[in-house]
Amino acid sequence: MLRNDFYTAEAQGPYETASIGRLELEDGGVIEDCWLAYATAGELNADKSNAILIPTWYSGTHGTWFQHYIGEGHALDPSKYFIISVNQIGNGMSVSPANTEDASIAMSKFPDVRIGDDVVAQERLLREKFGIERLFAVVGGSMGAQQTYEWIVRFPDKVQRAAPIAGTAKNTPHDFIFTETLNETVRADPGFNGGEYSSHTEVADGLRRQSHLWATMGFSTEWWKQEAWKGLGLGSAESALADFLDPLFMSMDPNTLLNNAWKWQRGDVSRHTDGDLAAALGRVTAITYVMPISEDMFFPVRDCATEQSLIPGSELRVIDDIAGHLSLFNLSPTYMEQVDAALGDLFGRETS
Amino acid sequence: MLRNDFYTAEAQGPYETASIGRLELEDGGVIEDCWLAYATAGELNADKSNAILIPTWYSGTHGTWFQHYIGEGHALDPSKYFIISVNQIGNGMSVSPANTEDASIAMSKFPDVRIGDDVVAQERLLREKFGIERLFAVVGGSMGAQQTYEWIVRFPDKVQRAAPIAGTAKNTPHDFIFTETLNETVRADPGFNGGEYSSHTEVADGLRRQSHLWATMGFSTEWWKQEAWKGLGLGSAESALADFLDPLFMSMDPNTLLNNAWKWQRGDVSRHTDGDLAAALGRVTAITYVMPISEDMFFPVRDCATEQSLIPGSELRVIDDIAGHLSLFNLSPTYMEQVDAALGDLFGRETS
Repeated sequence: MLRNDFYTAEAQGPYETASIGRLELEDGGVIEDCWLAYATAGELNADKSNAILIPTWYSGTHGTWFQHYIGEGHALDPSKYFIISVNQIGNGMSVSPANTEDASIAMSKFPDVRIGDDVVAQERLLREKFGIERLFAVVGGSMGAQQTYEWIVRFPDKVQRAAPIAGTAKNTPHDFIFTETLNETVRADPGFNGGEYSSHTEVADGLRRQSHLWATMGFSTEWWKQEAWKGLGLGSAESALADFLDPLFMSMDPNTLLNNAWKWQRGDVSRHTDGDLAAALGRVTAITYVMPISEDMFFPVRDCATEQSLIPGSELRVIDDIAGHLSLFNLSPTYMEQVDAALGDLFGRETS
Repeated sequence: MLRNDFYTAEAQGPYETASIGRLELEDGGVIEDCWLAYATAGELNADKSNAILIPTWYSGTHGTWFQHYIGEGHALDPSKYFIISVNQIGNGMSVSPANTEDASIAMSKFPDVRIGDDVVAQERLLREKFGIERLFAVVGGSMGAQQTYEWIVRFPDKVQRAAPIAGTAKNTPHDFIFTETLNETVRADPGFNGGEYSSHTEVADGLRRQSHLWATMGFSTEWWKQEAWKGLGLGSAESALADFLDPLFMSMDPNTLLNNAWKWQRGDVSRHTDGDLAAALGRVTAITYVMPISEDMFFPVRDCATEQSLIPGSELRVIDDIAGHLSLFNLSPTYMEQVDAALGDLFGRETS
């Protein structure tokens, strides 16, 4: 186990952990003690009909959701809903390469995990720990959107409403290659040492390079042109890297990023239907609002709209934001009101 | 001098060289013997009024222009025009880090060169070597577009028509950061050795990583999604990297790429007008067709259209192509007809 202050309650906010026991993975690996880190807000009602699940995105934890999305005045209102954000496997909070006590899966030996493994683990946690058989909603951004899609295809009867934000049901080939460039930043660092570094700080150069890739694809050309970093209290484009993105990514664990990236690259709900995406999305019975971000450079509205058109009764709700994919961090003053409006509409929809 | 078969007449097509003598550079360096590699087609007419200049782009040479753009049936028709493509300084064909015999500027010691230095050098070459005082047109893509803009702002009386394709007059901050990520791929390679490698093959890993960045930003998400690589005779997305982009970039000289990238990052015609881009572009008297590519991820149509609106009498001619920025390599069957149509119109315009 490595010490990393980023993956702590101090940095990410309070959380609990629970084990779902042995998890056999889609790609053949096993996690003998699969424990998940999760955080909750609000109270589960008597008939357990008000639970909203929030899976997490690449490089992220439950923290951003609790900091920005959840609270009174937001659609994700703990006075109405029992909200539970479950950290994805391998993200540094749930069982992960650098925090496991199981030497057989530590560091470079951590097994490949798929989006489907996370959803299976989450379903088990919700059912066994909380007795939740059906979710009021699943809401997720980016890799969280991948998990949201997996939920509504794999367990169509268990989800009433779904909001995949800035992500796809089937990862695109462009996105696969982009993610590979993220991986290469870390692997190219001699300090990475094949995944057997003794501190993430030994991979600082690689992590900084990864930050810079996020700076180009994660934002939009327009965000940089309008100097929107001023809205974050930053003084220059250089500062947007050196004082914001660089320290963020340089805090992270390289094996965690690689493990999650592998998962991200292979997200594809059509694995359930022999590669037929229309058949997979045709299964969906949840009321689904597909919510791409207008200036997202790697999950373009076009790609998300194509998938949305395959989901019965779904709606396309585009979030207009020049911050691009990283809008998810609630960087623009007009972002959250759009998210809240769409989620508010969705949560108000009656289900059959 | 390092041996590199990529920068040869066998690989790039025939060319000649000529020295313009000592070139003092904007940023303080000096190239004592500034020789330029250029290739021509067609004949200069008696009054020297039919010369078209083609500057080159990042990583490129005159080769692509002669292979794809120039010839009978194209707007760039050697039976009508004297066409001269001048390789930019530091591109591996003209005087460059790895091909100079001047030890004081070899490899890591090669001085920083600006877009303006190239245009000054080209103007001198055209005047002293060919007696050309005024150009029928300047046509350039990407960094060649930067040089085209520099020509029409710096020497407004010397250019009658201009076609900047897929590039900007003032580089955007987003583009600066993207280019830095290209630089980081090479610098992160231990084989780069601070620019003092003994063969570009020692930097193969870094160059391959650079290829992968081009694969994401250079193409569009749609190009990958539509599997447009099939049109290039390639069998898979993996092959589009391993058999096309990777070998291309792994053939190149790292110092050449870094030197050209430094120049690219700082392209800005408003240097002539104390940072006032409108004033700089307002100087233009050439008939100018601004030609962005519809799916270009780092020179979006929006950015190019904004600049176009500042150029008196100019027109915006968008080239519709899912190949994105790398459309410049004539990858789509509908690309060249659009370029030829726009250039044909431009060349047919009467000047005052």
